[in-house]
Amino acid sequence: MAQGQEEYRILHEAALRDYLAGLRDLKALLGGDPAGWAITEVGDGNLNLVFIVKGASGGVAVKQALPYVRLVGESWPLPLSRAHYEYLALSRQAHLAPGLVPALLHHNDDLALTVMELLEPHIIMRKGLVAGTQYPGFVDDITTFMARTLFFTSDLALSAAEKKEGIAAFAGNHALCKITEDLIFTDPYRIAEQNRWTAPYLDALAAGLRDDMELHVAVSRLKLKFMASPEALLHGDLHTGSIMVTDSQTRVIDPEFAFYGPMGFDIGAVIANLLMAYFASAGHERAPGERQAFEVWLLATIENVWNEFARKFLDLWRTGASGDAYPVSLFAGEKGAARLEIERQAYMQRLFTDTVGFAAAKTIRRIFGLAHNIDFELIEDPNKRAVSEARAVRLARAMMVEAAAFRTIAEVAGAARKLRDWQPELSG
Amino acid sequence: MAQGQEEYRILHEAALRDYLAGLRDLKALLGGDPAGWAITEVGDGNLNLVFIVKGASGGVAVKQALPYVRLVGESWPLPLSRAHYEYLALSRQAHLAPGLVPALLHHNDDLALTVMELLEPHIIMRKGLVAGTQYPGFVDDITTFMARTLFFTSDLALSAAEKKEGIAAFAGNHALCKITEDLIFTDPYRIAEQNRWTAPYLDALAAGLRDDMELHVAVSRLKLKFMASPEALLHGDLHTGSIMVTDSQTRVIDPEFAFYGPMGFDIGAVIANLLMAYFASAGHERAPGERQAFEVWLLATIENVWNEFARKFLDLWRTGASGDAYPVSLFAGEKGAARLEIERQAYMQRLFTDTVGFAAAKTIRRIFGLAHNIDFELIEDPNKRAVSEARAVRLARAMMVEAAAFRTIAEVAGAARKLRDWQPELSG
Repeated sequence: MAQGQEEYRILHEAALRDYLAGLRDLKALLGGDPAGWAITEVGDGNLNLVFIVKGASGGVAVKQALPYVRLVGESWPLPLSRAHYEYLALSRQAHLAPGLVPALLHHNDDLALTVMELLEPHIIMRKGLVAGTQYPGFVDDITTFMARTLFFTSDLALSAAEKKEGIAAFAGNHALCKITEDLIFTDPYRIAEQNRWTAPYLDALAAGLRDDMELHVAVSRLKLKFMASPEALLHGDLHTGSIMVTDSQTRVIDPEFAFYGPMGFDIGAVIANLLMAYFASAGHERAPGERQAFEVWLLATIENVWNEFARKFLDLWRTGASGDAYPVSLFAGEKGAARLEIERQAYMQRLFTDTVGFAAAKTIRRIFGLAHNIDFELIEDPNKRAVSEARAVRLARAMMVEAAAFRTIAEVAGAARKLRDWQPELSG
Repeated sequence: MAQGQEEYRILHEAALRDYLAGLRDLKALLGGDPAGWAITEVGDGNLNLVFIVKGASGGVAVKQALPYVRLVGESWPLPLSRAHYEYLALSRQAHLAPGLVPALLHHNDDLALTVMELLEPHIIMRKGLVAGTQYPGFVDDITTFMARTLFFTSDLALSAAEKKEGIAAFAGNHALCKITEDLIFTDPYRIAEQNRWTAPYLDALAAGLRDDMELHVAVSRLKLKFMASPEALLHGDLHTGSIMVTDSQTRVIDPEFAFYGPMGFDIGAVIANLLMAYFASAGHERAPGERQAFEVWLLATIENVWNEFARKFLDLWRTGASGDAYPVSLFAGEKGAARLEIERQAYMQRLFTDTVGFAAAKTIRRIFGLAHNIDFELIEDPNKRAVSEARAVRLARAMMVEAAAFRTIAEVAGAARKLRDWQPELSG
């Protein structure tokens, strides 16, 4: 799909129009006179330019990486190569989880530019959750996406050689990993210029975090696992802002943080963002109990995300294991099959513990780190917002330090429910 | 150091002489008329050709990879690229642990050929152990080698980006990893054509191993850790046949299995081979108690290898930690320092558990797998040999299935001592 070597340049509207008009298939897909195409920049993410282009007969989404972090500016350079890794990950995800990622239409490594199917009328899931919308198909879709992309890139499905080739193919994406290592696993726990929180209400909580050595040990173990446990090809940034939805469809987008890492990081990202939506919900209600059905759905969804993921992952393992790990030849016969099944359950329990810990890390960074989310940010009253955030932090602290004490996802959801109306003591 | 592109060919005596004579520095080092150089093939390893070349003024060792496994023949092809990885690993080890590996004199990737310092009068340590020789400098040397090569290639010393570059640089060496995955972690536990053992004496033990599902789960967990835990750059084959010694010197050779893997695999290899030397010792004595001082030294050495390794590794961590794991900024002040020190001890305890498990796997493969060792093989009486082997297996089984129950290396050494005169029930 890539063009011949050409120099990177930022394609603003006119240049983008010329570029797309020069690609026969895309020109035909858009239709009509290129001069009439409507081009709108819609990027609201932290890193890239995103254009929606609409022609007489169709539309596309165009994503171009900038050589710096958009959220911060040119002072924070970031390699364009991330567009290459995003393209690579999207290709593999499309193969492994068909219909759950946008269709790839064109990619140019030199321009760090990818053209994809325009998702309409999909919206960013996080926006729907803020509005209190339920997505009945979400659990099935996201657990299929996770079970299939994680299982089929793991040692349970691949030979060790194939797995090592995959690890090497993504090893160069370390600048994106470093963003995670710094912003999720380090900065919220120390004084860092980019940290922010709902001040003054959470000042004492922020200071407590910086002084909480049990938490620092726990987050450091998670960081080490993130850096040195290439279990599977991760999406790497699987929050509800990377998921687009309609009532009946789910599409996972933006895998530019993709790399081989611990599976629990992706699963934990989904669960953390649902938990945050839950704690934020009280802050969005205009009348008491108004969002109760939504909140009940959210807690059920949290439980179902893990349980359905685990069920599907285990099914794939039982029926599709062709990798070098746990070779079937060592578990022949009835006794072997029974023992392997016990080990599968133990494996899932270890993965669950990882998931709980990573979910905690993903929560804390959204409340004290650089990048916040609209679940909390759109709660206008800062006191109310701080109350919601403090509830999330209380659960997250327990999930990180005592991850293994949560034996089931029902215990996590139950702990969240108990904190629904807890009144924290705030600063200020 | 590499020459221009040239076609691979096996350099037997005459061709090797011409090749070396064409290299100015090596010609000068060897000295005199190349026609007078003495060239002897001495390879007794499983994979490669090894020549000793002696000239009028000096000598060198030349190692050339064959495109197949020497032990088995052309029916088992093996990529020549392993010579590249060996060269790469040797270069890094020479930098990190100077004086503990042979000096590199020349490398040619196309010919898969490396010329090294001739180690004289060093012998393969395993031969010395069979003869009952003590090596008073061994503990200090091997623990320096392991502590420095493992620490400085780990996340404790490197940035995540540097670490990922290292992992990618060795990812291509997967054919050598697969030998380990098959021969150490799989074949001894199932029917495999290449398995062999001291029959008929160990027939029942071999059958028991194939039927022992607790063991199969334990070895599968170790295999997964071997495949998917790139903690540091490993030697990858650190048994006593990869170590050359004199009374006062130690040199680690043959790192062609090098890759980023779990540290416990290297440490466990050293400990396993010392344990096997211990259990074999009874089979080599010509009079009862003859080798008692040697055996006492061996058990003390086993304890000291772990304890000194741990001490040196911890010292490096306390003084030289500049990696992305456990960032010092999260453990500031007296309280932080104290908590980090507790976590360091916990980290070493997890590494010790890994070490115990891997040592067990390395032991069992030498008794039931393809590649045996002379510690046991040179015990001529097969009944006596089987007794020594059965003692080693009894300990190894416990070490693999209940690795975490061994809290200290003294417990491992103590368990070995208790088995010194245990009389197993044998088949046949």
